[in-house]
Amino acid sequence: MMKVIVPATTANVGPGFDCLGIALNLYNTFYIEEIEEGLIIEGCEETYANENNLIYRSMKKCFEKVGYDHKGIKIKIENDIPISRGLGSSASCIVGGIVAANEIAGGILSKKELLDLATEIEGHPDNVAPCIFGGMTVAISQDQEIYYSQIKVSEGLKFCAMIPNFRLSTERARGVLPKKIDYKDGIFNVGRVSLLLSALANGEWDLVKHGCKDRLHQPYRGGLIENFDHIIEKCEQLNSIGVFLSGAGPTIMAMVNDDQFADDISEYVSGLKNRWMVKKLNIDYDGVRVQKG
Amino acid sequence: MMKVIVPATTANVGPGFDCLGIALNLYNTFYIEEIEEGLIIEGCEETYANENNLIYRSMKKCFEKVGYDHKGIKIKIENDIPISRGLGSSASCIVGGIVAANEIAGGILSKKELLDLATEIEGHPDNVAPCIFGGMTVAISQDQEIYYSQIKVSEGLKFCAMIPNFRLSTERARGVLPKKIDYKDGIFNVGRVSLLLSALANGEWDLVKHGCKDRLHQPYRGGLIENFDHIIEKCEQLNSIGVFLSGAGPTIMAMVNDDQFADDISEYVSGLKNRWMVKKLNIDYDGVRVQKG
Repeated sequence: MMKVIVPATTANVGPGFDCLGIALNLYNTFYIEEIEEGLIIEGCEETYANENNLIYRSMKKCFEKVGYDHKGIKIKIENDIPISRGLGSSASCIVGGIVAANEIAGGILSKKELLDLATEIEGHPDNVAPCIFGGMTVAISQDQEIYYSQIKVSEGLKFCAMIPNFRLSTERARGVLPKKIDYKDGIFNVGRVSLLLSALANGEWDLVKHGCKDRLHQPYRGGLIENFDHIIEKCEQLNSIGVFLSGAGPTIMAMVNDDQFADDISEYVSGLKNRWMVKKLNIDYDGVRVQKG
Repeated sequence: MMKVIVPATTANVGPGFDCLGIALNLYNTFYIEEIEEGLIIEGCEETYANENNLIYRSMKKCFEKVGYDHKGIKIKIENDIPISRGLGSSASCIVGGIVAANEIAGGILSKKELLDLATEIEGHPDNVAPCIFGGMTVAISQDQEIYYSQIKVSEGLKFCAMIPNFRLSTERARGVLPKKIDYKDGIFNVGRVSLLLSALANGEWDLVKHGCKDRLHQPYRGGLIENFDHIIEKCEQLNSIGVFLSGAGPTIMAMVNDDQFADDISEYVSGLKNRWMVKKLNIDYDGVRVQKG
């Protein structure tokens, strides 16, 4: 029985649409083993406890890739990452599945090859890259190749996730994005993401809020999330370092450097609809890990 | 008599349109002093040796700003930065002028205030920021405020400028840019500039060429520069780390980590029209400096 611990991830990080991501210390844990025959999946809704399960499908993709003829599979799931909230729950299933399958097959694939396979399954690399490598990453696709880099972030940065009680599918959140944009909006994000990365590397926390501004996805997606603008504004008033839509949402993520913020924003969101939950988080620097028992 | 040494700058750096810039060890030197009366300008074309001179106009802006009632001014110019080639010659005149004026007035303005004033005169901060601070910088304008950060670049990065014998005005180069772009082109540059900055910080030289790709200005401006595509392609063949249009052009800038590249590209461009000149350069880490004599 192998234990696979997979971090949550927050992608986009404001202006870094489709390329930036950060691993966080919130985890799904999968207990996985090869058994004589059949498929046993425990710990998830019955509709997912079958061959359509994303962890299992990802394992099969990995087995195919490395040419491993597996027998039966048993998966026990302990979910701490909320589903369809913009915190990389599907990336965690994909990465957990292929990492487990790779271990079972004898550890054939390198981390870079795991990234390639995970991106192939997920469709984009921005969550799976930090999920595999930990920390903050940039990852892009170019001519079927994935290029990634681990971004240096100065010490002291903390996170506070505001998670509502409703789901938002990535498909729906992608559906509201435009085909054409103003030239100046493209330039806007290029400047902001450059400022963001330099400010995070240097620990220039006062610059981060300017670097966090986005015109490429948040203005289109904010309308899908009740109270989005109010919460963003409140976070800024409460001196968050920066605030952004986590992945495709609906979670809103604040970067902070004190512990007071979480208490204050908890009080504020408790007065809103949709039972927003507030979670203090830190960067996970390790990425997915396997414990064999 | 004060000696003001002002570095050349290369802006945009591929995908970092209107925000990134790097100071280089190629300098204009201005000898400036307050004299009893009148205006004497030496060392430039006669058409610029008058009140329209950009150094002098910038000095006057600075004197106005700090409320200094100047007498006459003498300026002697030693130009090493080629004019209207995308190497920040106008930024050097502006920065040199205001820094000299600020010194004459008693050093009232901070470097940040000098940046604000230089940006006001130049219209955009991407050349004047590295010119003032040295190194590689990101600078953006937001609600009349300039925000900037000094970007960490790993050691060992060198530059090679390919400078043709014709000028290209920034106005003309701006005129070919579009009002609207494809959404995916905006996203493309966001991913590339993020990869570029992380790769430069980490010294991941093999990633830089992917991070250098641009879809926001080079595809539009390349057509204004004869042999642009050929030279870019040749630089890539000759194993430059990355290659991009310097500022608004027409200079093409390669990032390299060996000395062989300059010899090889010199041979190549010697066979082309427009007498391309090849210049080996390094990062200037100090920015503008003043020597009082």
